[in-house]
Amino acid sequence: MCELLGMSANVPTDICFSFTGFLHRGGGTGPHRDGWGIAFYEAGGYRDFRDPHPSVDSPIARLIRDYPIKSHIVISHIRQANVGQVRLTNTHPFTREMWGQPWCYAHNGQLEGWEALPLSFYRPVGGTDSEHAFCWLMGELRRAFPEPPADRRRLWSLLHRLCERLRGLGVFNLLLADGEYLYTYCTTKLAHITRRAPFGQASLSDAELAVNFAEHTTPDDVVSVIATEPLTDNEDWVRMEPGELLVWRDGEIRGRYKT
Amino acid sequence: MCELLGMSANVPTDICFSFTGFLHRGGGTGPHRDGWGIAFYEAGGYRDFRDPHPSVDSPIARLIRDYPIKSHIVISHIRQANVGQVRLTNTHPFTREMWGQPWCYAHNGQLEGWEALPLSFYRPVGGTDSEHAFCWLMGELRRAFPEPPADRRRLWSLLHRLCERLRGLGVFNLLLADGEYLYTYCTTKLAHITRRAPFGQASLSDAELAVNFAEHTTPDDVVSVIATEPLTDNEDWVRMEPGELLVWRDGEIRGRYKT
Repeated sequence: MCELLGMSANVPTDICFSFTGFLHRGGGTGPHRDGWGIAFYEAGGYRDFRDPHPSVDSPIARLIRDYPIKSHIVISHIRQANVGQVRLTNTHPFTREMWGQPWCYAHNGQLEGWEALPLSFYRPVGGTDSEHAFCWLMGELRRAFPEPPADRRRLWSLLHRLCERLRGLGVFNLLLADGEYLYTYCTTKLAHITRRAPFGQASLSDAELAVNFAEHTTPDDVVSVIATEPLTDNEDWVRMEPGELLVWRDGEIRGRYKT
Repeated sequence: MCELLGMSANVPTDICFSFTGFLHRGGGTGPHRDGWGIAFYEAGGYRDFRDPHPSVDSPIARLIRDYPIKSHIVISHIRQANVGQVRLTNTHPFTREMWGQPWCYAHNGQLEGWEALPLSFYRPVGGTDSEHAFCWLMGELRRAFPEPPADRRRLWSLLHRLCERLRGLGVFNLLLADGEYLYTYCTTKLAHITRRAPFGQASLSDAELAVNFAEHTTPDDVVSVIATEPLTDNEDWVRMEPGELLVWRDGEIRGRYKT
C-alpha cells in the first residue's frame, strides 16, 4: 500500500515538518521503497519533484525536507509498487492541464478492471492503474464540462460520482488538486487535522522531531494536513469515511459528499 | 534574451558539465536572473525541475549540478523575462501530454501578435507568449494527427511549417522533445556540437572547469549538445541557420528542414 500526504492552507506554508515524518515511511519505518513524489502549488504556479528511488536515500527528498517551499496546496506520495514497474514514468503524482489549470493527482490502492475505463482527451504515459484512472477521470470531467462550470458544486458532485465508480473497482484513496481546491476521497484510509490558533506543539510518530507551531505561524493561519495515517501522536486526527469526498480551500472544508 | 541548452545522446548521459557552464549565465556571467528550468527524459519517464529564482543562487540548481541524472534527452532554459511576470507559472520548460507522450518545450525570443494564435486542446497556465505559442503548436499537431503518423516525416514537415509561421511573428528559437526525438529550430541563435570517439578534452567558456570526456565515455557513445551560444571555447560548434529545423535521436541528426 502506498502512502499519501496532502496539505491545504490559507497562507503559503512549508511542509517540511510533515514531510520529514512522511519521508521516514519511504523505506525507513515503512515498506514503501518504490519511489516518491511531491507537488507544490505556489502563487498560481505548479511544480513537482519525483524520484523512482526510495525517499530515505534520495538527495532530492533531502532537498525538499531542508528547503522550505511555501505553498498553499501540496500533494505527496510514496509508492509501494503493485501494478506497473518501479520507474520514473510510474511515479506519482501525475499531472495534466485542463481549462488552463495544472491538475495534480496521487492515488493509493489497487483497482480491478481499470483497463476497460474509456479514455478520451488524456492518455497515460506509464503502465499503472492509477494513471489510467486519472486520465479517465479527467477525460470524464472535461467531456461533461468543456469549460469550468459557473457553479463549482456541479463539478464536485460529478467528481464524487466518478470516485464512487472507481471505488467499485477496488481501493481508491485519492488526492487531487486544481491549484485552487484540494479534493480528498476515501475508500479505506485517509485522516486529516486542521491546525489554527491557538497553535500548540506536535510531535511526529515516525521520527524524533517536535515542532511548536506557535513559533512559525500568525493567529490567522489555517493549515490542514491529510495523510493515509496520522503523522503525529499527540493530536486528534479525524478519519474520513469510506465513500466520502472532501473539498478543501485555504485550509477549510468547503464541500462534503457522502455515499 | 533567454538561454537554451539541449542534449541528445545514445546512452543515458548526465549533463553536469554543460549545466555548470550554463548555470553561470543565470545571473553569474549573464543577465538571466528571472528563473530557470531543466527537463530530463530517463528510461521512458519524464521529470522537470523549475525555479523562479536566479540559477546561481538556487539550491535546486546546485542539486542538479552535483547529482548526475542520466538521461538521453535534456532541455534546459534560463529566463530573462520580457513577456509575463517573474513567477513559477511563467518558468520554462513547459510540458503537455500528447498521444501518451510527455512533450517538453522551451523557447528563446519574443513574438508579436501571439495572442491571436488560436488554441484548441491545450491552454496556457501562465501569461507568456512562449507558453501560448507552445499550446498553439501542440494543438495544431494534434488536430492534424489525432494519432501519431506512421511516417514520422509528415509530423516533422508540419512542425517545420508551424515553426516558420512563428518565425513570422518574431524571434523563435526552439527546443522541443517528445521523449524519443529532440527538435531544435533556429531563428537567430542556436549552435550544436556532437561528441564521439575519439573523445577529447573540453573547457567551459563561462567557468574554470575542464573535462576529459574520454574518462567518462565508451567508444560507442554519441552525445550532442545544443545551446544558444557555444559553451566551450576549444571545440568547433556548428551554428544553425535561420529557418532550420533539426530532428535529433540518439545524438545524431535524423531530419533536417530548411526554409
